[in-house]
Amino acid sequence: MAAPWRQYLMKSLDANKHLKYSTFMQLATVRTDGRPAVRTVVYRGNHGDSDMLTFYTDTRTPKVEQLQHNSFAELCWYFPDSREQFRIAGRLTLVGEDFPDADLRKAREDAWDATGTGTRAWFTWPTSGAPREEDEGAFNSPVPDGAVPSFALVLVDPQSVDYVLLPGERRRWDRTPKIESGDAAAAEAPATWEQQELNP
Amino acid sequence: MAAPWRQYLMKSLDANKHLKYSTFMQLATVRTDGRPAVRTVVYRGNHGDSDMLTFYTDTRTPKVEQLQHNSFAELCWYFPDSREQFRIAGRLTLVGEDFPDADLRKAREDAWDATGTGTRAWFTWPTSGAPREEDEGAFNSPVPDGAVPSFALVLVDPQSVDYVLLPGERRRWDRTPKIESGDAAAAEAPATWEQQELNP
Repeated sequence: MAAPWRQYLMKSLDANKHLKYSTFMQLATVRTDGRPAVRTVVYRGNHGDSDMLTFYTDTRTPKVEQLQHNSFAELCWYFPDSREQFRIAGRLTLVGEDFPDADLRKAREDAWDATGTGTRAWFTWPTSGAPREEDEGAFNSPVPDGAVPSFALVLVDPQSVDYVLLPGERRRWDRTPKIESGDAAAAEAPATWEQQELNP
Repeated sequence: MAAPWRQYLMKSLDANKHLKYSTFMQLATVRTDGRPAVRTVVYRGNHGDSDMLTFYTDTRTPKVEQLQHNSFAELCWYFPDSREQFRIAGRLTLVGEDFPDADLRKAREDAWDATGTGTRAWFTWPTSGAPREEDEGAFNSPVPDGAVPSFALVLVDPQSVDYVLLPGERRRWDRTPKIESGDAAAAEAPATWEQQELNP
């Protein structure tokens, strides 16, 4: 059964779908030096019919090393037209070409097949955030049919969801059992969600 | 002299000013348990003619304890119409009613005077994020003229600014000397900024 916060999220996505950037979320992680980092990522739907949200990343970006160090992240998703904010905290799983699970490797290949030309090209460019490559030809490499090694599918397994609609509404859902780092059994146990009304 | 990234930021603010939410930024901090947190805050202009950005917060929210623990934060500011992203990392200073510096206490009072009725009322409500107060009368307290104790002005002293305009443009500015935690001399030394062109 879908987590109770999903109906809120799906409703918000629908109410804001006329905005191209309604699928843009801000992903916070912790740097290896203990300072926070945050950047925009694009929601790419849920994984199958699960509660896990997905986005893509380039395995050469610093967030990948950050997630190996601390796999917990928080997403802030603000919907401008309906003025709703979701804060989704949970554990991230990075599915690269060598990921052990065959079904998830397949999901990564399917994700690549579904991406557009511009997004694909970006994954073949010189490393994002590195000093500017002088040879402009490096930005014109041919894009192969299959997923390139730099392409990763990221799964977000939510542990808590905080929903705010100012001025009057705020609630929070917490998952039981809690997802702890490295505790695969807890992550795979059937989730129950406790809802609590909060002050806005 | 204004930091070189400020002209970019001012231009973006101007290009997106028709959007009510163009002043909304996502603030990432680190929780006391080491996990990341991120939420939307509202840009309230720069502090005087300095490079420091400001926003308001309620001293009763968890981010205040998080900042006492780790005063480094990162802002992600995405401008939907111009499709520009700024990531602004730096040290935060929370100016509450007991802040030692008189000029900053005055700036806090001035900020309160400049806020609207709705924002002011929010600071008198029961603690945001706490279990829902059943007594609705608690949300109707009279709002005093002077700043309430829960109202804090937050200064963001940037250490680095990363600017992206996809598909082609990315650059980064780093401040020298670096701002280190608790190093007041470095924070007060005249800043110079190094600009570097990066791969998008």
